[in-house]
Amino acid sequence: MNQYCVGIDVGGTTVKCGIFTIGGLLMEKWEVPTRKEEDGKNILPDVAESLKQHLADRKIDLTDVEGIGIGVPGPVEPDGYVHICVNLGWKDHRPAKEMQELMGGKIRCAVGNDANVAALGEMWQGGGKGHDNMLMVTLGTGVGGGLILNKHIVAGVHGAGAEIGHMHVREGEQETCNCGGHGCLEQVASATGIVREAKRVLVANADASTMRDYGDALTAKDVCDCAKAGDALAEKALRTAMHYLGLALAHVSMVADPELYVIGGGVSRAGQYLIDLVQDEYAALTPLLNRKAEITLATLGNDAGIYGSARLVLGNE
Amino acid sequence: MNQYCVGIDVGGTTVKCGIFTIGGLLMEKWEVPTRKEEDGKNILPDVAESLKQHLADRKIDLTDVEGIGIGVPGPVEPDGYVHICVNLGWKDHRPAKEMQELMGGKIRCAVGNDANVAALGEMWQGGGKGHDNMLMVTLGTGVGGGLILNKHIVAGVHGAGAEIGHMHVREGEQETCNCGGHGCLEQVASATGIVREAKRVLVANADASTMRDYGDALTAKDVCDCAKAGDALAEKALRTAMHYLGLALAHVSMVADPELYVIGGGVSRAGQYLIDLVQDEYAALTPLLNRKAEITLATLGNDAGIYGSARLVLGNE
Repeated sequence: MNQYCVGIDVGGTTVKCGIFTIGGLLMEKWEVPTRKEEDGKNILPDVAESLKQHLADRKIDLTDVEGIGIGVPGPVEPDGYVHICVNLGWKDHRPAKEMQELMGGKIRCAVGNDANVAALGEMWQGGGKGHDNMLMVTLGTGVGGGLILNKHIVAGVHGAGAEIGHMHVREGEQETCNCGGHGCLEQVASATGIVREAKRVLVANADASTMRDYGDALTAKDVCDCAKAGDALAEKALRTAMHYLGLALAHVSMVADPELYVIGGGVSRAGQYLIDLVQDEYAALTPLLNRKAEITLATLGNDAGIYGSARLVLGNE
Repeated sequence: MNQYCVGIDVGGTTVKCGIFTIGGLLMEKWEVPTRKEEDGKNILPDVAESLKQHLADRKIDLTDVEGIGIGVPGPVEPDGYVHICVNLGWKDHRPAKEMQELMGGKIRCAVGNDANVAALGEMWQGGGKGHDNMLMVTLGTGVGGGLILNKHIVAGVHGAGAEIGHMHVREGEQETCNCGGHGCLEQVASATGIVREAKRVLVANADASTMRDYGDALTAKDVCDCAKAGDALAEKALRTAMHYLGLALAHVSMVADPELYVIGGGVSRAGQYLIDLVQDEYAALTPLLNRKAEITLATLGNDAGIYGSARLVLGNE
């Protein structure tokens, strides 16, 4: 009888690891440094060694573990092949197969992209619990996404499933996005994008604003705090960012029509205030829908990745 | 051994019926008038009667039929319930269950929305043959869509899956769409939308154009024909329409990332010329994708619905 599952979230600085019951209870979590030198060849062996130790400490036999799931910060092909993962120095890896071998060759292992896996984690035990069809948006330095339909990740044929950060939503944008495009959602709704938009608003308007006190050090959190405190220019900038996020979600509804949107990442710490802004814009742009999808906050924070990785190895129930 | 399957495509004027081998060969097709009077209560009994006759004529026993699939022109809930179907006068129907009873209570029946079912048909034996992940766009009076992921229709939680006609793609549009929104894809890329755009271009430009000869009777086909013949204003109008279609497909790629787009409907008779226009716009708006989805023409025409309805009752292979 398998009672446990393991989630591994490989990041550029640390690898987060978690042992879960198959019911979704996090028993223990810990971190292992990510050794990127030598093309990251030590990363998985380090994790395997640490995992064996932690399982032994808890007297958990490997036959009691349903499987080990791994989230990686880059594209994963449908068969588990990772062609390149810049953040880890990896080229030509099959993380699931390698982990299986490192653990003795028998245990079930699975791998997925970290943004997709985080969405699965929020579905399993976070803001999306009880929902089988949802999209998670992560508003951080960039804008990431993970789409879940019928409890399964939609990774996409070219690995671009739920890449909503690179939806072209803003006509007329002159600056170039990291992807080479112009007017991507990420350029306006990420933490970086919100700051850029706020600075543009400050340049274009002579009105007083507490945002001016922060100078170049202005952060997305500052913009959110100023907006909440009633600063008109901060509110204007944030409303623009959330207009484009609402537009992107409206597009998603006209493609995949999920029942729920879960908003996570650093920017989402602005809380219900932010959700209300997005909700207004989203509702105005989906007149076709009598019943709208809900929009809610993510609840697992940085643990979403280990939850989702662990969930990867469980079945459909 | 079941060798056959049946596809029924219920339209507002006629019901198209087809008997197929389970390998996808269309043995026979015919039509039954759609009797909409008395809330359309005769529609399914008429079809059942006609189907029994056709099967008897071919000496096909019902036990040799794998199942009967039905496409209906309106929203279908995941459990097969049709709350309302304006085009047929239907309220509160369960077409699959009703058909099963009309056919003696044993045969497997399934129901789906007509645009989704047409996409499934194109996947099975049309422009999408051999592809498991595709979106079909129907450019007709309106713009319809059907999304297939892993060979399954994505109908959506609120029935809005692949409603790409109501993606809000055009900022600043003043006219109102049928859905109540502004700037929907349908307003510019449907047959009606292309004509509207062409007339706007004619008003805004004093240049000579052969489109002026058609007066108010101008059709989308005329616009396409003039553009192909080198008429600059027609080309300008059509390019605008295909820009927004390309933008909508780029959005779809950043959500569901299919491998193929299949373009059907009356407007698609403009052929490869139209595909090339969309392809250019789509490629320019998806810099993230090293490998792009293909864009191709639908091949089944009005038969896509019977093919897809029949395919509904087959398994995943």
